[in-house]
Amino acid sequence: MSSQKAWAVVAGVGPGTGASVARRFAKQYSVALLARNPSNYEPLVKEIESAGGKAVGISTDCADGKSVKSAFEQLKKEMGGAPLAAAIYNVGGRFIRKPFLELNEEEFESGWEANGYVSLHLQAGCCLMKSSADKLFRRGGFHFSQAVLPLLLEALKGSPEHPPTLIFTSATAAMKGSALCSSFATGKFAMRALAQSLAREFGPKGVHVSHAIIDGVIDIERTKHYQFDHPDAKIKPEAIADSYWYLHTQPRTCFTNELDIRPYIEKW
Amino acid sequence: MSSQKAWAVVAGVGPGTGASVARRFAKQYSVALLARNPSNYEPLVKEIESAGGKAVGISTDCADGKSVKSAFEQLKKEMGGAPLAAAIYNVGGRFIRKPFLELNEEEFESGWEANGYVSLHLQAGCCLMKSSADKLFRRGGFHFSQAVLPLLLEALKGSPEHPPTLIFTSATAAMKGSALCSSFATGKFAMRALAQSLAREFGPKGVHVSHAIIDGVIDIERTKHYQFDHPDAKIKPEAIADSYWYLHTQPRTCFTNELDIRPYIEKW
Amino acid sequence: MSSQKAWAVVAGVGPGTGASVARRFAKQYSVALLARNPSNYEPLVKEIESAGGKAVGISTDCADGKSVKSAFEQLKKEMGGAPLAAAIYNVGGRFIRKPFLELNEEEFESGWEANGYVSLHLQAGCCLMKSSADKLFRRGGFHFSQAVLPLLLEALKGSPEHPPTLIFTSATAAMKGSALCSSFATGKFAMRALAQSLAREFGPKGVHVSHAIIDGVIDIERTKHYQFDHPDAKIKPEAIADSYWYLHTQPRTCFTNELDIRPYIEKW
Amino acid sequence: MSSQKAWAVVAGVGPGTGASVARRFAKQYSVALLARNPSNYEPLVKEIESAGGKAVGISTDCADGKSVKSAFEQLKKEMGGAPLAAAIYNVGGRFIRKPFLELNEEEFESGWEANGYVSLHLQAGCCLMKSSADKLFRRGGFHFSQAVLPLLLEALKGSPEHPPTLIFTSATAAMKGSALCSSFATGKFAMRALAQSLAREFGPKGVHVSHAIIDGVIDIERTKHYQFDHPDAKIKPEAIADSYWYLHTQPRTCFTNELDIRPYIEKW
Repeated sequence: MSSQKAWAVVAGVGPGTGASVARRFAKQYSVALLARNPSNYEPLVKEIESAGGKAVGISTDCADGKSVKSAFEQLKKEMGGAPLAAAIYNVGGRFIRKPFLELNEEEFESGWEANGYVSLHLQAGCCLMKSSADKLFRRGGFHFSQAVLPLLLEALKGSPEHPPTLIFTSATAAMKGSALCSSFATGKFAMRALAQSLAREFGPKGVHVSHAIIDGVIDIERTKHYQFDHPDAKIKPEAIADSYWYLHTQPRTCFTNELDIRPYIEKW
Repeated sequence: MSSQKAWAVVAGVGPGTGASVARRFAKQYSVALLARNPSNYEPLVKEIESAGGKAVGISTDCADGKSVKSAFEQLKKEMGGAPLAAAIYNVGGRFIRKPFLELNEEEFESGWEANGYVSLHLQAGCCLMKSSADKLFRRGGFHFSQAVLPLLLEALKGSPEHPPTLIFTSATAAMKGSALCSSFATGKFAMRALAQSLAREFGPKGVHVSHAIIDGVIDIERTKHYQFDHPDAKIKPEAIADSYWYLHTQPRTCFTNELDIRPYIEKW
Repeated sequence: MSSQKAWAVVAGVGPGTGASVARRFAKQYSVALLARNPSNYEPLVKEIESAGGKAVGISTDCADGKSVKSAFEQLKKEMGGAPLAAAIYNVGGRFIRKPFLELNEEEFESGWEANGYVSLHLQAGCCLMKSSADKLFRRGGFHFSQAVLPLLLEALKGSPEHPPTLIFTSATAAMKGSALCSSFATGKFAMRALAQSLAREFGPKGVHVSHAIIDGVIDIERTKHYQFDHPDAKIKPEAIADSYWYLHTQPRTCFTNELDIRPYIEKW
Repeated sequence: MSSQKAWAVVAGVGPGTGASVARRFAKQYSVALLARNPSNYEPLVKEIESAGGKAVGISTDCADGKSVKSAFEQLKKEMGGAPLAAAIYNVGGRFIRKPFLELNEEEFESGWEANGYVSLHLQAGCCLMKSSADKLFRRGGFHFSQAVLPLLLEALKGSPEHPPTLIFTSATAAMKGSALCSSFATGKFAMRALAQSLAREFGPKGVHVSHAIIDGVIDIERTKHYQFDHPDAKIKPEAIADSYWYLHTQPRTCFTNELDIRPYIEKW
């Protein structure tokens, strides 16, 4: 076992899943929180430090290879030789529905930065994101994976308590394309392909790669006004964090490479 | 919360997954162990009782509706009004490969009871079982589900700590048919259909139904002679038991309905 | 090429897909029509003979191995050494929805023979059939496959114009279980497993095995009262027959093992 | 029915599938052939014209929105108001295997233009393409779809003989990620997502969108040296062309949205 406290890195730390995952992993590890906007990780860094944990926030645009490279240079200094125990890619975005023929190339490749768009329940089918789905899921997943896999492989040398772990937060759109949702689905399908390919390449080396299909509305401030007939109709981000922690603790004799998560009342 | 210690029932208790699952759930619940042959559960009942747990064994042929009915009448007496917290359907069998056209109806419908057959790694493709795949998986799954679901629904009234849970032990053959493996695949596909249908019918009522795809050789006495180039190449049944326990503890806001489990070196 | 006119056999000949498939294959082959009730094939035999084709009807219960054996003994006499070019398993049934816990064993294993049941659109979720789904799909598929595969293999010796072909008519329920539909889904999942296993075992020998997922309401007399907002909302059975004929004509360098078929307006 | 001869457009015309598809559709339609390099379509244009058909070649880089726009401006002039009956997206590439951590961003995003790379059978797992998989499949598919869908919708007004059709040539890598093949799989998964999303958005309007999973080695000059133990082990591109033509002729009451195609001896 390594003599230094190991680290976990979470990319995509906002008010929901990312923050809950960071809190959960901070119980055992030092955590690095990546987000484009420091306002997304600063309160969380303070909260984790106040609770006696160790956290650093690094402003990072995962879709930009240089930004990721520079973030991990900074992170490696912070880590000072301690191992990386887990990496969670949880970068998401906000969406609007739009017919395919109304999408322009800039929207498809770069996302939509205008104000006043309407955020809709993912299940309703969405096609346009503030940042493009391809940037967020495929390209960001590529850069993040390239940055963390050498560290996760390196961690194996220290006989870690749990197998080094890389988890991708995904969605039902990774399994099924929908009308008005082409951009989101292409990004999520591509992320699933990446997760499967990496699981098959790095699993036999001892790194646990998982693809988590989150199917339902996350219970956060922004979704407070979504009304359902049943209680517990939204997924608690703390429960997702527990499931990621469970995945991380699976021994290499028993790796789960894909699981779905949905509220009991969700149709699927 | 119920004032009485709750129960878990495990069907298919042999030397591998079933026994490990029973030991794991016996840490918190009284456990009922079902198997056709008492020699399969007797040592385990003793072991659990010696460790301070409570266990009863009931000889049951899950493929036979009357046998299941009588087993649950006995079990309900044992339970004395305590709730059923979890039910695991883990009935399996032993296989041989056989070309489709050499299968006769009796083998397809009843299985093969002769001596001296060769047991092979499931992944090699297998078509014939000591008891038929249909009896074990489809019909047994039907009778067991009909017996446990009313008890799991009843348990909801007592505000249980964890949602009442029904887990099916399955295999890769539930996802993909193989040459020389028609009987095994039809049984496992049917079991997956049953698990999905029940998850969609009983999930919204609060019962958690899961289908666990176990992909690899289980590490038990019978597979001791299987040699692999890598360590930890066989699935530890204790790790499967931990995953089932994790599934059981998921809150209803976060149900996993299907997950895969395989050793890190497994090709898939 | 064989000097004698080849045969096609269609199991499950009613007013819909089966009859259309028989008519299509009768343009090139002599056809054998199997159904339990002679009233299902008699008018069709007459119709095909009047049009200059050759057809025989044989009363057969595909779920009963003896009945299938006896039907094929009769058929072989009719064929008089001519080859079997194609076999289509199209046995279906009529359904009602029923909660899982209201199903009894007899209904699950034998089907429901009472009068006055309500037939519903398959997509609405159905669980109970006049004859059990297991009998119709898994067991019937087994007996039919065992009867036709030796004939299809035999036909290879005559250098047939098209690869000998076995097609299973299936449904969306082969891919997805539904609430209140457990019996139907278990049967269809099992049929898909059988089709995949046989494709993998008999494909390399030159026999083309296909699984056709028919997703939608068939346009027949019995569904005349189903109203849709759009024209062409029901699948024309003649179009299914054309697709089966296309599958049959694929060369062995280009086998399709699974395809879906649905009307343009169908949600999926 | 339109009074003018309708058109089909094929993107990705090389020595294999694209050329065969163009020849097949040229029997009934005027055809437009798109490829980056005119040497890929010039001989085919001559061949089709000599055979009495009508063909035009347009140099196009489908990954470049401007190039696609300009190609379709030219094409619309050629068409002179005649309808577009079918569009086939068949753009592919050549690959090498490479471990994930040896991929650099330029290779991942732009492909590899160096000389002397080794082309390998797709099934062996490949990760790097002369042009990036994302450019070829996701981005190229986007631009091509945006260009052809308005024309296919427009064609509906002329009551075409067959529903206007958009077909994507895909691969097994659209269903399953592989070690050393992350870039290819992400591109193909994304293309499948696009095809599904468009099928669900444009199907109900009457446009038939299909995703064809081609699983095996295509029988072309470049694969002549691949040796197999069995005859007909490679897919004949003419047979793929026939299957695409069959898809095109399906009426809207019977759309196939996905099918697989593989040689009889292919393992899958």
